[in-house]
Amino acid sequence: MSTPRSWLASAQDSPFGVHNLPYGVFTADDQPGRRRIGVRIGDFVLDAGAAARAAGAPSVLLDADSLNPLMAAGRSVWTQVRADLTLWLTDEAYREALSPALLPVGEVELHLPFEVADYVDFYASEHHATNLGRIFRPGSDPLTPNWKHLPIGYHGRAGTVVVSGTPVVRPHGQRKAPADAVPSFGPTRRLDIEAEVGFVVGTPSRLGRPVVLDGFREHVFGVCLVNDWSARDIQAWEYVPLGPFLGKSFATSVSPWIVPLDALQHARVSPPERDVEPLAYLDDRGGEPWGLDLAMEVRLNGHLVSRPPFASMYWTAQQQLTHMTVNGASLRTGDLFASGTVSGPEPDTRGALIELTWNGEEPLKLPDGTTRTFLEGGDEVIITATAPGPDGTVVGFGEVTGRVEP
Amino acid sequence: MSTPRSWLASAQDSPFGVHNLPYGVFTADDQPGRRRIGVRIGDFVLDAGAAARAAGAPSVLLDADSLNPLMAAGRSVWTQVRADLTLWLTDEAYREALSPALLPVGEVELHLPFEVADYVDFYASEHHATNLGRIFRPGSDPLTPNWKHLPIGYHGRAGTVVVSGTPVVRPHGQRKAPADAVPSFGPTRRLDIEAEVGFVVGTPSRLGRPVVLDGFREHVFGVCLVNDWSARDIQAWEYVPLGPFLGKSFATSVSPWIVPLDALQHARVSPPERDVEPLAYLDDRGGEPWGLDLAMEVRLNGHLVSRPPFASMYWTAQQQLTHMTVNGASLRTGDLFASGTVSGPEPDTRGALIELTWNGEEPLKLPDGTTRTFLEGGDEVIITATAPGPDGTVVGFGEVTGRVEP
Repeated sequence: MSTPRSWLASAQDSPFGVHNLPYGVFTADDQPGRRRIGVRIGDFVLDAGAAARAAGAPSVLLDADSLNPLMAAGRSVWTQVRADLTLWLTDEAYREALSPALLPVGEVELHLPFEVADYVDFYASEHHATNLGRIFRPGSDPLTPNWKHLPIGYHGRAGTVVVSGTPVVRPHGQRKAPADAVPSFGPTRRLDIEAEVGFVVGTPSRLGRPVVLDGFREHVFGVCLVNDWSARDIQAWEYVPLGPFLGKSFATSVSPWIVPLDALQHARVSPPERDVEPLAYLDDRGGEPWGLDLAMEVRLNGHLVSRPPFASMYWTAQQQLTHMTVNGASLRTGDLFASGTVSGPEPDTRGALIELTWNGEEPLKLPDGTTRTFLEGGDEVIITATAPGPDGTVVGFGEVTGRVEP
Repeated sequence: MSTPRSWLASAQDSPFGVHNLPYGVFTADDQPGRRRIGVRIGDFVLDAGAAARAAGAPSVLLDADSLNPLMAAGRSVWTQVRADLTLWLTDEAYREALSPALLPVGEVELHLPFEVADYVDFYASEHHATNLGRIFRPGSDPLTPNWKHLPIGYHGRAGTVVVSGTPVVRPHGQRKAPADAVPSFGPTRRLDIEAEVGFVVGTPSRLGRPVVLDGFREHVFGVCLVNDWSARDIQAWEYVPLGPFLGKSFATSVSPWIVPLDALQHARVSPPERDVEPLAYLDDRGGEPWGLDLAMEVRLNGHLVSRPPFASMYWTAQQQLTHMTVNGASLRTGDLFASGTVSGPEPDTRGALIELTWNGEEPLKLPDGTTRTFLEGGDEVIITATAPGPDGTVVGFGEVTGRVEP
């Protein structure tokens, strides 16, 4: 079945065509302060609740102030809502009724699209983990012995997940260089980014009931971009033995548009060959592959500094979801789990400054004549991504951006 | 001012007298399924919303189905509500009106009293950290170099915080003994407890604005008991380099009664002498001390196996709160931060089986003739605590209990 065309001109050949239909939450001046669910289509945002009412469809899930009720409703509802939206935006018969529900994207303010329940950050790029192992633990094997047996992850701070555009305040904390006798306190000198991909849980699960690999599609609502801001000096001093804490918890930015999992069917690819046999619960060979061919780009002050290839990730989101629940831990609507920094094998595909500048030893030369090791006041980072859609279309993720307060 | 006496006989000489007044959430058969805020008094639970209405007081915060609205209202409201409750329960004039709002504690079901936002677990007992360092990292210094400079903590899973009494399903996961070439998958063989004290945040804070030591009283609503169930074999294999994850995330039990911070004024003690100078933001010398003299008891299948002394903790909850936010991370109503395992210097004051049995090498002999290294199916663990109250009274925390499913 070929993708239908929208009656909306700006949706043609757009990364936000009807093959995508990502969800967000917006406010606009026509109803100041009222958060509404929006669907991005071309250069517009469709007020989803207003559209449902105009189309005579049930609107309760689309009239919410966050995506959580829709996310909690489960896959059969997601499929129905997506089919409805596609019909409304492609059938000329709906054009007149729906047009008043379309707002130019430049005229809305976008908000955090869902209430984050638990936030888990994985560490699934072999290249990233190897690079960080070399930098943080020189002289040891760069990958810890467990790395290829399980997708390593940890819980991050859900309360400081913020929407793209939120300014980042440089965190203070304890830092101790190897040569220092004792730690000192002050602003981080090594403020970094981590370009990641986030997966958003819709359908909850029950305590004590692991979610098997085949449950991925039922539980995962959609995908967004994540910038997991990191203070490397704070992190290096604090993280042994219980893991990252304040070096990460000051801010994690997410893109405002949640791309439905169903929009990524054509982006699915086989993950890289694994050189260690996975335990049965993580063995995804023979099932549907959940590698995803997202082409990411990282820009610093407007300059392209990296093109991380998400398809290179060793562990997939499907394996991460299963691992995260194999001990019986339950899922809640709004759980966010991120991939960890996406770094490819080439130096210009690394998703963090600590790798791009090799721990600050090889500064980045930007085209404007400046150099960077880590982020300076006023710096702006933009992470974008696209993925293949049906019939040669491109699925856009929009961007996650943040500026360090001067 | 001496503590007034309640007109309720069972509140006399009770650890749940009017000097305590802990908050919880209950259901009872008179209104099936309706969650209500209750205040424990003697052998009864006061339906707080009904009491407020009977007393002609504002009831909106007390008529909620969780403590979150009351917790969010801030310290001045907490003080007023506590004064109201004290008046109602001590002045004979309220006896007749309030009596219908008293339910025998045996006739109510207690629930998770608040919606957990973020859950952070610290590692604040020097004795516990030293013991675990010796067990997990033999040959190294038992305390990592950062331990006495900052209160080490990490984020846990908020979605699997459960109320006391919730059965614990033995988690499955990857385990690898040092002698094994590769990990295997199966139920944990080393299921453990961690006896901890939890602090519940009421008043939120703003992103980018650290909470200084003096802010402790404004932000912390109350205190509960925590059992941070742990699968030691899963934890040992997974925790390097990003910290505990599935070894902890399957369940964390909390006691159903939140003891107001104001009930613990007489329990405040100076923390132990620190042998490393704290950085200024953590320096609590000269301010009010926030060590707390809680006497904890751990029972396994009814047998007392440990008496952890909370007053021995190296880092206080006040320091933990400040550290947790010093990077600008914000607080939300419902944030829970726990002390980490409470272990004293003596072997019979250790708060986890891994310490009590020295990694399983010295099994506990129970009075019923059985022995234990780690938990077996059907085992029940009960943690209780009391603290000094005013005028020779005792503040009861009730208990956090859980049974391992057979």
